[in-house]
Amino acid sequence: MFNKILIANRGEIAVRVIRACREMGIRTVAVYSEADSEALHTLLADEAICIGPAKSSESYLNMERILSAAVAMGADAIHPGFGFLSENARFAELCTLCNIKFIGPGSDVIARMGNKSEARNTMTAAGIPVVPGGKEPVRDAAAGKAVAAGIGYPVMIKAALGGGGKGMRVVRSEEEFETSFLNAQREAMKGFSDDTMYIERYVENPRHIEFQILADEHGHVIHLGERDCSVQRNHQKLIEESPSAALSPELRREMGETAVRAARAAGYVNAGTVEFLLDQDNRYYFIEMNTRIQVEHPVTEMVTGQDLIKEQIRIADGEPLSFTQEEISLSGCAIECRINAKLAGKITGILLPGGNGVRVDTAVYTGYEVSPNYDAMLIKLIVHDRDRKSAVRKMQCALGELMVEGIETNLEDQYEIFTHPVYEKGPVDTGFMEKYF
Amino acid sequence: MFNKILIANRGEIAVRVIRACREMGIRTVAVYSEADSEALHTLLADEAICIGPAKSSESYLNMERILSAAVAMGADAIHPGFGFLSENARFAELCTLCNIKFIGPGSDVIARMGNKSEARNTMTAAGIPVVPGGKEPVRDAAAGKAVAAGIGYPVMIKAALGGGGKGMRVVRSEEEFETSFLNAQREAMKGFSDDTMYIERYVENPRHIEFQILADEHGHVIHLGERDCSVQRNHQKLIEESPSAALSPELRREMGETAVRAARAAGYVNAGTVEFLLDQDNRYYFIEMNTRIQVEHPVTEMVTGQDLIKEQIRIADGEPLSFTQEEISLSGCAIECRINAKLAGKITGILLPGGNGVRVDTAVYTGYEVSPNYDAMLIKLIVHDRDRKSAVRKMQCALGELMVEGIETNLEDQYEIFTHPVYEKGPVDTGFMEKYF
Repeated sequence: MFNKILIANRGEIAVRVIRACREMGIRTVAVYSEADSEALHTLLADEAICIGPAKSSESYLNMERILSAAVAMGADAIHPGFGFLSENARFAELCTLCNIKFIGPGSDVIARMGNKSEARNTMTAAGIPVVPGGKEPVRDAAAGKAVAAGIGYPVMIKAALGGGGKGMRVVRSEEEFETSFLNAQREAMKGFSDDTMYIERYVENPRHIEFQILADEHGHVIHLGERDCSVQRNHQKLIEESPSAALSPELRREMGETAVRAARAAGYVNAGTVEFLLDQDNRYYFIEMNTRIQVEHPVTEMVTGQDLIKEQIRIADGEPLSFTQEEISLSGCAIECRINAKLAGKITGILLPGGNGVRVDTAVYTGYEVSPNYDAMLIKLIVHDRDRKSAVRKMQCALGELMVEGIETNLEDQYEIFTHPVYEKGPVDTGFMEKYF
Repeated sequence: MFNKILIANRGEIAVRVIRACREMGIRTVAVYSEADSEALHTLLADEAICIGPAKSSESYLNMERILSAAVAMGADAIHPGFGFLSENARFAELCTLCNIKFIGPGSDVIARMGNKSEARNTMTAAGIPVVPGGKEPVRDAAAGKAVAAGIGYPVMIKAALGGGGKGMRVVRSEEEFETSFLNAQREAMKGFSDDTMYIERYVENPRHIEFQILADEHGHVIHLGERDCSVQRNHQKLIEESPSAALSPELRREMGETAVRAARAAGYVNAGTVEFLLDQDNRYYFIEMNTRIQVEHPVTEMVTGQDLIKEQIRIADGEPLSFTQEEISLSGCAIECRINAKLAGKITGILLPGGNGVRVDTAVYTGYEVSPNYDAMLIKLIVHDRDRKSAVRKMQCALGELMVEGIETNLEDQYEIFTHPVYEKGPVDTGFMEKYF
């Protein structure tokens, strides 16, 4: 097993990985920016090394500095968390060149799945259903318009390297096309330094259903059920649940098997997520594969009782999966809610909920200074109960208890969603937020 | 279902019960002493009413004030938590007289099980093995010495109404008997206003194994597996685990069935615990039945995935058990550790562990003033993992993360126990603490 793992991340996911390593008896190295010298991940790791200024491009996104730190500290593996360099194929490749194990899939798989059109072609070849769309990416509006005309409106414009809702636009008519295309392309260039775009059929009010995959180096590929992430605003997930109230056992089995086939088609190793859109007629379409651990992984951990981060580390170490598909079952219902800061500032007081079936993943504490340089997510609140109704109620209660003083958060907004009768009844589709809020 | 429940308790168990009520949509009334106006249970409940000065006898132990509060606030049920009035048969009786449902067994059952010799006679009559001992209680040292001579040394002297290690003494020879008896009796008088004592064979280095029972008003009685509470100091539990590493599946089944028979023999309704001593030859003896929810109930909740407090409330409301014996299985291993204050004082800072498989039950927060008037328990830290080894390791890590500033706690002491090689290997017996610490 690895002797020392460097965590190339910050915030709650860095804390999450440090905890898993400690529990496995593996030493940890935190990297931190100048803004994060008092951050929890910096304080919790066995060793910590400053890698540069607050700006991500000079620290958490700086491959050379992170790799130098790993070599200097004698780390034999790197866990990238999510965001930052986690889906950067070049970084995974450089790790290998430095003889440091990248805890994730191979760089070739990251590259292939990171490019929307390559991913799509891989899946089409494997017989996995994809949203009808143009086979090739486009770089200018005129070519895009021609593709859109062939597919039929409404269409979705997506950045080939996109993610998190950036570089995406829904276009409902030819008249809107050019403006939307150029705006999306500008966003893509800014966010991913790449203006390659992709056009596909826009599925109206689908549900976002994703399957958690685990694959080892010995050819075992299994899924751990689905997460329903249909509550989104501007393509950003706000709430995640497992299991989805929209899936029958038969559909779950079928989509799970499809997700496993998709992972096999990608040559996947380690933890990953196969994302589908599920339309109102229960037809589902592959949209992308995320080649990393996800923000919402705890809901899967709660319903399966497994530890995804530890399993990632064991897989990277060459171990076979420590459980089989038959040993995985979903028990009860888990829901995650993201508490974000609306503005940077100092947290002057915090009171976290706790007790039976309540999990808190966070890296903030009383006195913590929320930096404007990084993602605004402060707390992941996860609840687990016997069924969806009980879990929703538990989340309402937990949100009612949570107090964050000193900075403004989205706590009230989340509470309003969880107490909305349409959400309470569930399941909802991705049009829910736009329609009701 | 009840409309409003008054919680006749304070601290983390009051918070625990308030949470369960809120999740069930039941309004809550907190009672608080003058020392607890800023306590978490006071703040979290829907309504709160001050019932007197800090001293327990004038507030949390004052039946008239609590019942007056319940009547005044229109509560239709009272949850007693543990400690205070939870095993007071008179209080349960007064609740019934006031037409308020006492959430627990009937006052006759509390009285019968609360008296050690009556409990013992009930079990003997039902064919449940008990520790060899005198059939009748004694009140003076000479009579006690005669009983001890008949049983053979070593013997255990116990207060008939005792609990929590108070009024207990091990006596290894006739010479020590009188002094120990008088000391134990003095403690009993002070603690329980009753000097009735009981003498039985002292089982050397047994394990403390207790079974969680649930029984409804419709004749269903089930058990939810065992808790191993062998790590004790002065008969005070320090650490609790479920399942016990000392039990084979066969022994678990047999003892579980015996515990169910014991509960039936007691005419039991609601949540209770049947406590056994298990000797080195796997012979087990009933020692007592606790007629309330216990401090250590969360470990059972973690391995069974059930909510014992909600089930208590449903049972009290006349509902049948919401699951059967066959639906209960123990998954993984859960361990609880009690973090206590060594002295009263103000908590100036607190950092709680969290993440996967970590549960925190507490009523303290940054700025909270620990009162010298009440039990010193501040935090219950509970971990759950796939097996005992992983759970022990997780607890070590969680304890490593926990920080309490401003007051001295037993955190370091607990950490030393959890990292002791004999404990790590496990299982240990009740002689563990005395032998190694």
